Amino acid sequence: MHVVSVKEALEGKVEVGSKVEVRGWVRTRRDSKAGISFIHVTDGSCQAPIQAVAPNTLGNYQNEVLHLTTGASLIVRGTLVQSQGKGQAFEIQADEVVVLGLVDDPETYPLQPKQHTAEFLREQAHLRPRSNSFGAITRIRHAAAMAIHRFFTEQGFVWVNTPIVTASDAEGAGQMFRVSTLDALKPPRTPEGGVDFGQDFFRKEAYLTVSGQLNVEAYCMAMSKVYTFGPTFRAENSNTTRHLAEFWMIEPEIAFANLSDDAELAEAFLKAIFKAVLNERRDDLAFLDSTVGKGIVTQGGLIARLEAFVQSSFERVDYTDAIEMLKKSKKKFEFAPEWGNDLQTEHERFLAEEHIGRPVVVMNYPEQIKAFYMRMNDDGKTVAAMDVLAPGIGEIIGGSQREERLDMLDARMRKMNLEPEHYGWYRDLRRYGSVPHAGFGLGFERLLVYICGLGNIRDAIPYPRVPGWAQF
Amino acid sequence: MHVVSVKEALEGKVEVGSKVEVRGWVRTRRDSKAGISFIHVTDGSCQAPIQAVAPNTLGNYQNEVLHLTTGASLIVRGTLVQSQGKGQAFEIQADEVVVLGLVDDPETYPLQPKQHTAEFLREQAHLRPRSNSFGAITRIRHAAAMAIHRFFTEQGFVWVNTPIVTASDAEGAGQMFRVSTLDALKPPRTPEGGVDFGQDFFRKEAYLTVSGQLNVEAYCMAMSKVYTFGPTFRAENSNTTRHLAEFWMIEPEIAFANLSDDAELAEAFLKAIFKAVLNERRDDLAFLDSTVGKGIVTQGGLIARLEAFVQSSFERVDYTDAIEMLKKSKKKFEFAPEWGNDLQTEHERFLAEEHIGRPVVVMNYPEQIKAFYMRMNDDGKTVAAMDVLAPGIGEIIGGSQREERLDMLDARMRKMNLEPEHYGWYRDLRRYGSVPHAGFGLGFERLLVYICGLGNIRDAIPYPRVPGWAQF
Repeated sequence: MHVVSVKEALEGKVEVGSKVEVRGWVRTRRDSKAGISFIHVTDGSCQAPIQAVAPNTLGNYQNEVLHLTTGASLIVRGTLVQSQGKGQAFEIQADEVVVLGLVDDPETYPLQPKQHTAEFLREQAHLRPRSNSFGAITRIRHAAAMAIHRFFTEQGFVWVNTPIVTASDAEGAGQMFRVSTLDALKPPRTPEGGVDFGQDFFRKEAYLTVSGQLNVEAYCMAMSKVYTFGPTFRAENSNTTRHLAEFWMIEPEIAFANLSDDAELAEAFLKAIFKAVLNERRDDLAFLDSTVGKGIVTQGGLIARLEAFVQSSFERVDYTDAIEMLKKSKKKFEFAPEWGNDLQTEHERFLAEEHIGRPVVVMNYPEQIKAFYMRMNDDGKTVAAMDVLAPGIGEIIGGSQREERLDMLDARMRKMNLEPEHYGWYRDLRRYGSVPHAGFGLGFERLLVYICGLGNIRDAIPYPRVPGWAQF
Repeated sequence: MHVVSVKEALEGKVEVGSKVEVRGWVRTRRDSKAGISFIHVTDGSCQAPIQAVAPNTLGNYQNEVLHLTTGASLIVRGTLVQSQGKGQAFEIQADEVVVLGLVDDPETYPLQPKQHTAEFLREQAHLRPRSNSFGAITRIRHAAAMAIHRFFTEQGFVWVNTPIVTASDAEGAGQMFRVSTLDALKPPRTPEGGVDFGQDFFRKEAYLTVSGQLNVEAYCMAMSKVYTFGPTFRAENSNTTRHLAEFWMIEPEIAFANLSDDAELAEAFLKAIFKAVLNERRDDLAFLDSTVGKGIVTQGGLIARLEAFVQSSFERVDYTDAIEMLKKSKKKFEFAPEWGNDLQTEHERFLAEEHIGRPVVVMNYPEQIKAFYMRMNDDGKTVAAMDVLAPGIGEIIGGSQREERLDMLDARMRKMNLEPEHYGWYRDLRRYGSVPHAGFGLGFERLLVYICGLGNIRDAIPYPRVPGWAQF
């Protein structure tokens, strides 16, 4: 007896006629009048279930098989045969069906064999991976994550996990969560009457990180090619379809590199991940294409959109030129494009979808709208920043060449009312063998929203935070 | 001109006589009386530096090359040749040395070309990856992390990132950090005078996770084979050489599995990771063997210890038998072994190192010392828990078969004064197609302590939290 996953059984790699054992959960059960039950069994290894054909000659047919409902767990032992019906190529002629666990009160079991709304499933976070759509998203998330690690490893990058709890606010990138073990009601006080964080666990006020970039730069200055891939946090209103308070971020950083190298890396990166998912999770993409994919018909659906992306060559446009393009267009924008303002999603999507029609890298933004660590260009007005815009979503990656010149960094910090002495170690990197370097960051869940065609970023993370789900 | 990493240049895969460009940092510079400088250049891609031979005929020889000190950054262009000296097989005859960044005040540059203490380097967290030892640890950490993802992926596991911020305390596994955006000094109050966490970001009191296990069990009940690999937190005294407040944990969970399957998975897992590191980072292990490895000569050093581990077959011992072995031994223990008490590190090491002499899985512990979710054995006294003990460190993995029977789970919860109704979704998993399942957990940094032979777990994490390093 050969224990196989549903995926292995369906792949045609198991010899037809051999005895196999499959373990999983019932997706559906259908009984023929001739006294045969057709049980679709899934184990999470792939989108399709395998059909087990259970004859009424089985000893437990009346007492157990006929009581199997969606979600019940079982072991099927039998012969792998070519399927007579349409759909799957293989099925199992069952010699034995071992029922492991039934479903209490099948009528109220939340995961009925029908299409549920995403809202409903979010409140069933512990059960939703059993649904076709979240099974697909879970496998795609895995394939994408592995493709990310593989892409970087093959190119000689080193994964660095930067601190989650930190005393630095990185770039003032967003509102932060405080991390503390002090008594919440009666915290110890300083003589001046403030909270005495000197008595807290870390002996100072500490937060959840908003970005690992500054920390990973130090590793870049030693290992040359590094990346983070870990959780980051923003305590901003996350009650939208586009924001998460807790999300995973990917931040590569390369030494001996300028903004053009950075754009090249971003293009190679996105294409490699999309290719991997297209190759490895075609079944799940096809399923999503048949459901959520209907929402993006203008782009030909999910698979067509990813394939077009992979085959495109990215356009590079200067921010200043992009503003001109927007101004010259006849498009009515909610926000009028203006040099010195950041691009809005409507501008980004117009550029990528209509004006240029493929992914665009907008480069060299006005310094006043960009972070202190971005490298000042020779024009004295713009910095070497970039955003990668994708058709159908807008900005998907943001990056920059970093300011590697200590005097320029200090000048920019002072201009932005930052205290250089608070950044001692970061400044050290510019004092000790400084090199040109660049990097970018992207949210993993935002990437999955694009890959899976999701309408709400909560569906890209295993456990969404919704009021209905008590323990998150 | 072919831009290559130091690793590529030294591997013998670049044609001898070809023009190459290497970019990196100076490890050392030595000048011959004949007017030639030998510069050892490192870029983090491997342990060994490459030697660049710079003749005094270079235009910038006097003004720049002779001012290169440890830590300065440069680009070397020249011809890859076979090395005349001992040590490396290849070196670069430089046509050009471009100095990118010198070192401010080389006398006080913290990373002098000598062996520093680990204590000193911890206070130079942003620079220590430039040292030989932390370069090695950083690369080994990467190789081990990738081997972990690869091991699971090849076996059909799916990576699940469970929530970092959570309202559940998992298993009462340890002291937790509170996560909040409330005013620390004057938090809002409830009518009863407590802190009104209903006004906090998550509308309830929230913490940093101590384990993803309970959450990942839900995914196990849908995908069959899953694992977490992410940060976890314990607000315990971490001022020891064995504890970290923030560390990365690996937690696989398998469905249709019992404790024996779990032990098998643990054995295959550890061997696969050690094999990968032995294959991929032999250079770094050899370096560490020549320094920290001296501390474990009784086990033949670092590489010998890992090789012995990989070649051993694990012994399985019942907890009750292990207690008997300890009692019968003539060894003087600080803590007398007694049925009903947990094993101490001295007991674990005696078993693995002296009594049995190879890795040991101790199985079936008394229920009173183990968590509520572990499966009750038929004897009514022990639960299906296991610890994997490794020679030289003691416990390295802890795991269990989970209680999949709802009535048994409820009974055990009540015995331990836990409220079943607080675990609604966890109990649901036992109501809807429950299956036998098992899993284990291990700390990634603890694994690295073992692989790298470290004396302090702070050296296994990229950014140690030490008072000397202001921003963690």
